[in-house]
Amino acid sequence: MILALAGGVGGAKLAAGLAAVLPPQELAIVVNTGDDFEHLGFRISPDIDTVTYTLAGIANRELGWGIAGESWAFMDQIARIGGESWFRLGDRDLATHVERTRRLRGGESLTDVTAALATAHGIAHRIVPMADDPAPTIVHTDEGALAFQDYFVRRQCAPALTGLNLAPDVAPSAAFSALIDDPALAAVILCPSNPYLSIDPIFALAGARERLRARGVPIVAVSPIIGGKAVKGPAAKIMAELGVPVSSAGIAAHYGAMLDGLVIDETDRAGADAIIGPRLLITQTIMRSDADRAQLATDVIGWLRREWTLDPSDPISGVKKA
Amino acid sequence: MILALAGGVGGAKLAAGLAAVLPPQELAIVVNTGDDFEHLGFRISPDIDTVTYTLAGIANRELGWGIAGESWAFMDQIARIGGESWFRLGDRDLATHVERTRRLRGGESLTDVTAALATAHGIAHRIVPMADDPAPTIVHTDEGALAFQDYFVRRQCAPALTGLNLAPDVAPSAAFSALIDDPALAAVILCPSNPYLSIDPIFALAGARERLRARGVPIVAVSPIIGGKAVKGPAAKIMAELGVPVSSAGIAAHYGAMLDGLVIDETDRAGADAIIGPRLLITQTIMRSDADRAQLATDVIGWLRREWTLDPSDPISGVKKA
Repeated sequence: MILALAGGVGGAKLAAGLAAVLPPQELAIVVNTGDDFEHLGFRISPDIDTVTYTLAGIANRELGWGIAGESWAFMDQIARIGGESWFRLGDRDLATHVERTRRLRGGESLTDVTAALATAHGIAHRIVPMADDPAPTIVHTDEGALAFQDYFVRRQCAPALTGLNLAPDVAPSAAFSALIDDPALAAVILCPSNPYLSIDPIFALAGARERLRARGVPIVAVSPIIGGKAVKGPAAKIMAELGVPVSSAGIAAHYGAMLDGLVIDETDRAGADAIIGPRLLITQTIMRSDADRAQLATDVIGWLRREWTLDPSDPISGVKKA
Repeated sequence: MILALAGGVGGAKLAAGLAAVLPPQELAIVVNTGDDFEHLGFRISPDIDTVTYTLAGIANRELGWGIAGESWAFMDQIARIGGESWFRLGDRDLATHVERTRRLRGGESLTDVTAALATAHGIAHRIVPMADDPAPTIVHTDEGALAFQDYFVRRQCAPALTGLNLAPDVAPSAAFSALIDDPALAAVILCPSNPYLSIDPIFALAGARERLRARGVPIVAVSPIIGGKAVKGPAAKIMAELGVPVSSAGIAAHYGAMLDGLVIDETDRAGADAIIGPRLLITQTIMRSDADRAQLATDVIGWLRREWTLDPSDPISGVKKA
């Protein structure tokens, strides 16, 4: 069983690629909930929705969030009657927030709600929130501390990031915890999401980093930095603000001892020597099409099997550190 | 100052007519909230919304509820992910429910929220909920007791009504209570809403009926029954089920001593002799256009001034029982 850790768009694409090539029992996707917030009375889980919509094949590829073919009548009306309209909720997307909020208020866990919504969208693979309790990421910037969506959406990541408050006192969800302990766990893939804003919040949960590392299975990341830029989002900007090299070498340095392997793009072959620590897979990592996603997933799984002698016929015992 | 009591569509039309011919300080519209309920996590006030949308000029005239030019992407998506879709909420209409719910959860009263939404829609006249606390109407039928919207929307008023549980223990809203006591109160108009489902819930509130009657100002109704039929809705069906004559005489009998005057349609001139009790105004009461609404409002106000010697130059002291 492969455990994929994911945040938003880039992570969701690789998660969809993995779901395209692995049967449901051999993949679980644990998703960052540090971006979650309450808005207009709704409980909003942006990364869970992006992963769910992407796996369901209904993600809005133009916007990079929300549902394809979305309409905005609700938002227009909210603006007209003086409500808050800085965080845009499409008419279809709204159904997700209404159902999630209704179910959470009814006592269901975020894990259960996420599973129910995934099932409603015809998704067979497990999408698991990193935590059931709120674990909000606070962004420290040169303009002070900001709630995540104030930084990310309202301010469009304009303030310079100086640090993050993650949620080390919040426990992983029971489902995530069970996945960490699952005897079938063969490898962990850090999807090409923002390391600071999407993956670190998962690692930061109480005991998560240590327990994942202690399993002894390979942990590999797909670098979100290609040619000195982030494919999408503020990863490159944040790395520059923190004084980290904006490169896959910087990604490797950031993950440090958590990382056994790093997948970098062919574009960056020349810079591979600067990457210290993890084993490398150099391949095509830009995912423009569904075929690209499946190909990258196939490449990463094949590499795991080769490099860490993961035996596909015995996922439980087949993984050994080389 | 005229106090208009209103429920849904028919009442909202006359309320809009009154608002077209009276300045804001000379009209207050108190609206039934017995139909209010919580659905999909929203606090929904169907009659307040109908009155608000009608006065704002954005009511959906085809449907008889909701906003003109509405779209249904949210509802379609809710159905797709397995949510409840029997009570249809349009994409624009939803903005009202979201804002209302958010403000109520934030501690505002329904009165304050209703006023804020009316202002947002550019309405200068007062729209006042009959009560701030929940005052749900329970409908007793030959199939048992039903929550109001289960009877009205889910079952489309199909079960035979045998009685109603109103909310005699719920206090009128402070704003409604102040209107009852307002020295400027000159007359009360019962709009052509359903007497059982829309007006009686207002009268039934603790002390409302007695305090209104004790003011000594004329209380007049516009009959919702024309030619033995309700213009819209289940009023005629309910009267038949309760064994009441389906006519303006039946309306007069139902309101009894609460009524000083009754406005009936020209169509029913021949049956006027059967109406016992109130003074009568026979005029055109069907409101197909904005002009019809304003004309009926003008007719009723003129009749009040003539019949009860209401002096338009002195609305405070000008009304006397003839």
